[in-house]
Amino acid sequence: MLDSPEQNEDYMQQAIDLARIAFSNDEVPVGAIIVDNKSNKVIAKSANRMREKKNATCHAEILSIHEACDHVQNERLVGCDIYVSLEPCAMCAHAISIARLDRLFFGAEDKKSGGVFNGPKIFESSATHHKPEIISGLCSSESSQLLKDFFKAKRNNG
Amino acid sequence: MLDSPEQNEDYMQQAIDLARIAFSNDEVPVGAIIVDNKSNKVIAKSANRMREKKNATCHAEILSIHEACDHVQNERLVGCDIYVSLEPCAMCAHAISIARLDRLFFGAEDKKSGGVFNGPKIFESSATHHKPEIISGLCSSESSQLLKDFFKAKRNNG
Repeated sequence: MLDSPEQNEDYMQQAIDLARIAFSNDEVPVGAIIVDNKSNKVIAKSANRMREKKNATCHAEILSIHEACDHVQNERLVGCDIYVSLEPCAMCAHAISIARLDRLFFGAEDKKSGGVFNGPKIFESSATHHKPEIISGLCSSESSQLLKDFFKAKRNNG
Repeated sequence: MLDSPEQNEDYMQQAIDLARIAFSNDEVPVGAIIVDNKSNKVIAKSANRMREKKNATCHAEILSIHEACDHVQNERLVGCDIYVSLEPCAMCAHAISIARLDRLFFGAEDKKSGGVFNGPKIFESSATHHKPEIISGLCSSESSQLLKDFFKAKRNNG
């Protein structure tokens, strides 16, 4: 691995930029990118597109895993990391486990709907057979503010 | 709802038939169908296709939810039920919650990888905001035997 704290923050910033795109499309602002550690290249990136796609499974992480699996032509993403602007929900956390991603970087915690440090704490479960290294808190205030602004705007618009 | 125990078993049998297709394709034998309660019609069905699709997220339930959302052109499947041959994992259980499915019928429990009665028990979590009615144990011996046969064959083939 050739990464550095600066590089990790740069990747997280790319995930946050995708979250901003989600926000502008009236989607819950979450973005995710997947990086291949060997080449240090971004192999997948997606904003949350649940409403646009009219599909309950189209969270940013699921779409990114889908794209990355297509890219490497393998259902396992060994040697790859995922950067997510917000703590993944249980669906996405377990998908990260099934995909065997090496490391999970995420920004702000999601106390209401998160599944990593909150809720069902997926990676502490005996039914989760692969547990990535977890690095949380990168650019968390930016990610958290984005989420607050989104739900504030939603409340103000009725 | 116009269903009856016989009809529920018939739907579960269709899910098990899909699990047999998965088995014959060298996939973990799981099948799922989604039924619209209003019309009593099957609107989506899928076998597990993770290896074929080379995609970690292509469990039978995720593929069925995807197909059903496409069918109704909505990310919420209110008024629909899902029948799965095996207890869903955490990823699929939480997807069932996000999709707002009314009822979850499943066959055998999955003590190793299940996420409903086992592991992270997704529907007991405060981070799971919709909880379907759960009806378990339909045709469970058939579903369980299929899984045992699959892993026995895997062990015998090295």
